[in-house]
Amino acid sequence: MLWFVGLGVCPPGSIPADAARILESADIIYLETFTSPVEPSACVAGARPAPRWMVEDGREILDNAERSTVALASYGDPMVATTHAELRARAVSRGIRTGVVHAASVASAVFGECGLHHYKAGRTATIMDDAKATLTPYQTTYRNAVSGNHTLLLLEYDVGRGFFLDPGAALRMMRGAEAGQKRGVFAGDTYVVVASRVGMPDQAIRAGRLDTMEGRDYGGPPHSIVVPGPLHFTERDALLALAECSDEPPPEGHAIQSIPHQMMQRYAPAVRRAADSIPDPDRYRTILENALLYVRDAERALEEGHDEVAVLSIGYADGLVDALRMQLNLGEWSPDTKM
Amino acid sequence: MLWFVGLGVCPPGSIPADAARILESADIIYLETFTSPVEPSACVAGARPAPRWMVEDGREILDNAERSTVALASYGDPMVATTHAELRARAVSRGIRTGVVHAASVASAVFGECGLHHYKAGRTATIMDDAKATLTPYQTTYRNAVSGNHTLLLLEYDVGRGFFLDPGAALRMMRGAEAGQKRGVFAGDTYVVVASRVGMPDQAIRAGRLDTMEGRDYGGPPHSIVVPGPLHFTERDALLALAECSDEPPPEGHAIQSIPHQMMQRYAPAVRRAADSIPDPDRYRTILENALLYVRDAERALEEGHDEVAVLSIGYADGLVDALRMQLNLGEWSPDTKM
Repeated sequence: MLWFVGLGVCPPGSIPADAARILESADIIYLETFTSPVEPSACVAGARPAPRWMVEDGREILDNAERSTVALASYGDPMVATTHAELRARAVSRGIRTGVVHAASVASAVFGECGLHHYKAGRTATIMDDAKATLTPYQTTYRNAVSGNHTLLLLEYDVGRGFFLDPGAALRMMRGAEAGQKRGVFAGDTYVVVASRVGMPDQAIRAGRLDTMEGRDYGGPPHSIVVPGPLHFTERDALLALAECSDEPPPEGHAIQSIPHQMMQRYAPAVRRAADSIPDPDRYRTILENALLYVRDAERALEEGHDEVAVLSIGYADGLVDALRMQLNLGEWSPDTKM
Repeated sequence: MLWFVGLGVCPPGSIPADAARILESADIIYLETFTSPVEPSACVAGARPAPRWMVEDGREILDNAERSTVALASYGDPMVATTHAELRARAVSRGIRTGVVHAASVASAVFGECGLHHYKAGRTATIMDDAKATLTPYQTTYRNAVSGNHTLLLLEYDVGRGFFLDPGAALRMMRGAEAGQKRGVFAGDTYVVVASRVGMPDQAIRAGRLDTMEGRDYGGPPHSIVVPGPLHFTERDALLALAECSDEPPPEGHAIQSIPHQMMQRYAPAVRRAADSIPDPDRYRTILENALLYVRDAERALEEGHDEVAVLSIGYADGLVDALRMQLNLGEWSPDTKM
């Protein structure tokens, strides 16, 4: 039998009753040490440390679980870690009985501690200590922001090596990604929250503009970063009540206008102006009428949430008018120079 | 003092040690009854039931918390519920000390129980028993699927009224939304997972094609639905090991091609063919060269992840060529007829 036992965010106080019972009766206890800022002796007496390679390899743990009752204990919720979910599937396919004791995870606790609505949490990403690997967390944050979601960014953390990525350094890396991507996701005035040691007695939630946050001192790990999407007023109130805010949260939070909205704002009036500039419009009536029709279609599509159709239609309208301008030697302006 | 106390997903076994300690010493205990499938007597002796209006109104709880130690206990993690986060912010602003004991929540436990990677979870939505309110869960699922995320769909649930939305009925409502939206999010072959009574002794994880899943019997609540995004092979293996699968999970999971990719697949060859069909091409060389250039720009933009620029460019190229076709009376074909 193989138990996956969650210790919660601040053992021993966060250990569920069932977990305590199982840890008492298990023949062998492993304590996962690569994501857990946990002193083994503090909560799990007699546990063998299980570094990353041992859990990924899995053979020792599975072999023992075939013969006796084994518990693999870990900080937070055991099934949040991909490695544990995979080890469980391997155990099941080898015919080993498995059980899980769920416990509180930072991934679900952090939003409440920041005063943010949990259901608005989008996909999670991890910032690694590698300037070449910033695109994934950057794009995840962009996609979440455009959809009005909050983003949880975990920071590279390896208890075994004693390494953790500092939140200030992580924020500066995201500024670097911004310089290349220019989507406005990590601008100087982007509001960010750093949640340190969530659930522990010295928990600290700090919030402010990226400009001020990237230089602050956050103390010891674990840390994570939350980039809030647009804020409901109750979230703004809660953030002010629960976090040390170095700057006021913006009334609307981090409202990134989606690229289709940005495009429409520039193109719809530009195409209408270009259509007006065509001399002898009667001669080109069909084309010009079509162009204006597509501008209106684009506006309607955007209102109805069909963003891609809006962009396609406004591009099409622009092409119709520009073909005339090229023929009449009025000079083309390309979408590139208009954006 | 006001404590928010999480009972986890299967009390009393899931109650953290700190929570048990606080419930023993609190002067007044409220048990939130509108999201919790919990028999009060089973785990929290002497608790007063707190229906939704009482927690939303909050005055009785806050008044008592000014004078004595109050614990508000709830199923799962207390801070996942928006109502609790808001009540906490109000307490803080009234100068009342607050504390939270986090516990396991279905929102974080469910992905592991389905064998799915937790970090790929996108925004959560709730399906209400109201055919007019299906657009939000539908669109949330669409956005998550396009971004490669899994979607957790909670089902309307009111312990006080004794009402829960049946998973089969919820799936049929999503089919109704599909009929209007036609984004391919809830097709007959869409693979879905229904997670019932997560963490409880009679937990059941069932998975299969929507066609077969919408008619199954799921037993008593609580239930939730997960619509997996594209599956990593380890997720597919884990799903097969952990769920009762009435159909094989698709090798790639629910890979919805994004609308920009769908558009490009149709438009790039269509615009090239249309450009080839223009008679006397030398006369229109500038326009035709520009059109082909923009088709290539669009393809490159799509490869680089600039989907909106791709759609804008292909629309523009299409407009350039169609302006010529209109002038030459070759017949326009509009993007509408091409899609």
